Amino acid sequence: MEIIEPGSTIGILGGGQLARMLTIAAAPLGYKCHIYCPEERSPAFQVADAYTIAAYDDEDALAKFASEVAVVTYEFENVPAATAEFIAKLKPLRPAALPLAISQDRLTEKTFLEEHGIATAPFAPFQTEAELKAAVKKVGLPAIAKTRRGGYDGKGQSILHSQMDIADAFAEMKGVPAILEGFIDFDIEVSAIVARGADNRIAAYPIAENKHTNHVLDETTVPANISEKLAATAHVMAAKLANALDYVGILALELFVVEKTNEVLVNEIAPRVHNSGHWSIEGARTSQFEQHIRAVCGLPLGDAQNLGNVRMKNLFGDDIHKIEEWLSDPRAHYHHYGKHEARKGRKMGHVTWVDSRE
Amino acid sequence: MEIIEPGSTIGILGGGQLARMLTIAAAPLGYKCHIYCPEERSPAFQVADAYTIAAYDDEDALAKFASEVAVVTYEFENVPAATAEFIAKLKPLRPAALPLAISQDRLTEKTFLEEHGIATAPFAPFQTEAELKAAVKKVGLPAIAKTRRGGYDGKGQSILHSQMDIADAFAEMKGVPAILEGFIDFDIEVSAIVARGADNRIAAYPIAENKHTNHVLDETTVPANISEKLAATAHVMAAKLANALDYVGILALELFVVEKTNEVLVNEIAPRVHNSGHWSIEGARTSQFEQHIRAVCGLPLGDAQNLGNVRMKNLFGDDIHKIEEWLSDPRAHYHHYGKHEARKGRKMGHVTWVDSRE
Repeated sequence: MEIIEPGSTIGILGGGQLARMLTIAAAPLGYKCHIYCPEERSPAFQVADAYTIAAYDDEDALAKFASEVAVVTYEFENVPAATAEFIAKLKPLRPAALPLAISQDRLTEKTFLEEHGIATAPFAPFQTEAELKAAVKKVGLPAIAKTRRGGYDGKGQSILHSQMDIADAFAEMKGVPAILEGFIDFDIEVSAIVARGADNRIAAYPIAENKHTNHVLDETTVPANISEKLAATAHVMAAKLANALDYVGILALELFVVEKTNEVLVNEIAPRVHNSGHWSIEGARTSQFEQHIRAVCGLPLGDAQNLGNVRMKNLFGDDIHKIEEWLSDPRAHYHHYGKHEARKGRKMGHVTWVDSRE
Repeated sequence: MEIIEPGSTIGILGGGQLARMLTIAAAPLGYKCHIYCPEERSPAFQVADAYTIAAYDDEDALAKFASEVAVVTYEFENVPAATAEFIAKLKPLRPAALPLAISQDRLTEKTFLEEHGIATAPFAPFQTEAELKAAVKKVGLPAIAKTRRGGYDGKGQSILHSQMDIADAFAEMKGVPAILEGFIDFDIEVSAIVARGADNRIAAYPIAENKHTNHVLDETTVPANISEKLAATAHVMAAKLANALDYVGILALELFVVEKTNEVLVNEIAPRVHNSGHWSIEGARTSQFEQHIRAVCGLPLGDAQNLGNVRMKNLFGDDIHKIEEWLSDPRAHYHHYGKHEARKGRKMGHVTWVDSRE
């Protein structure tokens, strides 16, 4: 693969904080960014060289966008498959359309993982109530019913503790194609973030430990407090998946660690830079954002090692306004996503602390 | 001083690489930047939320610019004094107009330093040939004649080795107000970079050692290979000057170190972020660019400590195109300034290496 020369423009589908941080990371490498996003006043617009406000199915706008960029990437996995395919015919799309398609459908995702020997919770698809009953028999209880598509941060999900919950869980799915997953009694949630370059080399970030509150990531600490063996297992799973997808860019795996069985299981995958990798901006030699840009542009990957013990905390709603408080620690790094409204529970920024090993 | 709230817009006079790196550093803190610069396609435009292309004496454009920003700063010391004063009447200008005025005139600068007990080379002003002869008597030989205003990277300067050089040096000055400075037989060139916050606190970066080639900075290494005592002297000089100017922002002092007399002498001052501080982007906990933005916005200053031994190398002309070569070291950090033409000798970017102390 030829490199995308500095001075070129990278197209990014999506204009939220991930696109914003990708754009900021692209600048020192000499790349301009063009953001494509349906929402006005998107966070990434403020730092981008150009932006297009248009719907993901506006083919005229997509074609014009593609004509103005050298390569296209995306900041989130819900870019419609048709959009990805349309773009991929006009310009290199990295990562490609396949990881998008896989991560958009929980059944396809789990099936792909199973086919490649990557451990996940037991699962079975269903759409009718009879199929749900059969799925419960296969997967066991407790279990979680989830719609195959859409839903995030715990939305579109229903827990089944006993047979009595089947009717409710079925009603919750509203008849759309769904999947039943065995409930994992995990001890720790971690994530494995790897970059895969155009030269097929992989750079792996240290395993990060994640604390969720109300199904939303609250804090990440690096390195995760797990054994070296489990960390190695998680890294192998991520690398195996990246290779199976012939992936280019940053790939994140959310994982459950079960200590009593010494198991690591994939919860879900994200074909993009990930919230649990934000610590790497100051905490690693090469941030996940720069690493993604390097991969997408065919450049050599950078060192993904952490520079010490790192803690990253998300800022929700009004927490973002306490900038003086956060920065009263001269070693704290504050990040504001440039969103206009600090709605309650909305991710507005994050703070990172790196305690170097000196 | 009240803080400038994140979400506000910072105005920057000048649109080169320093403004570009200030803009990139302002984004994580939640600030948008509006660049004011006479040159089309300036490097900072690519990452800025807004820009104005207009002359520095265009008062209508300046007034409109001022009306759209919360605070104004500048990236270089040759912003005309009248521009600074015009802006300062409309919006807070940080640093203020005084450091600009002082750094624009070598005689005012040296006189200010002398009055505040900050060591420099001996100096004397001249405009006529008779005054130059008197200056030579006072300052001694060898000496350097320089125009009081303008000139950089060795331009507008003439060395006098003997009385015989007086006529030539005088001719070189073309009758403009000038200054004769005693030639310092220095061993090392270093720079002292400090930030002074709105709360008058000072954060000092470790002293940096600079290697010039053809009067232009080529490499900086941190920390400088000088004694702790000399480093402390340099820090005191910088802090004294920042206080004397009631300075807000990053202030850089270029210094000569003379080992045999154990002296540190100011060569010149720069009321702005400085090329010899670029190492701090990855090499310090808080970069000089973020630090400047924090000071200008009334935020607490960050830790200015280096994270290890750092080396920064400027990339001139075609060196910028060797990105794959530079990044073949996974620990190298490459910076491209977004300039369109890689003219020979032009500063196009830089590379930084941090060898952490682990």
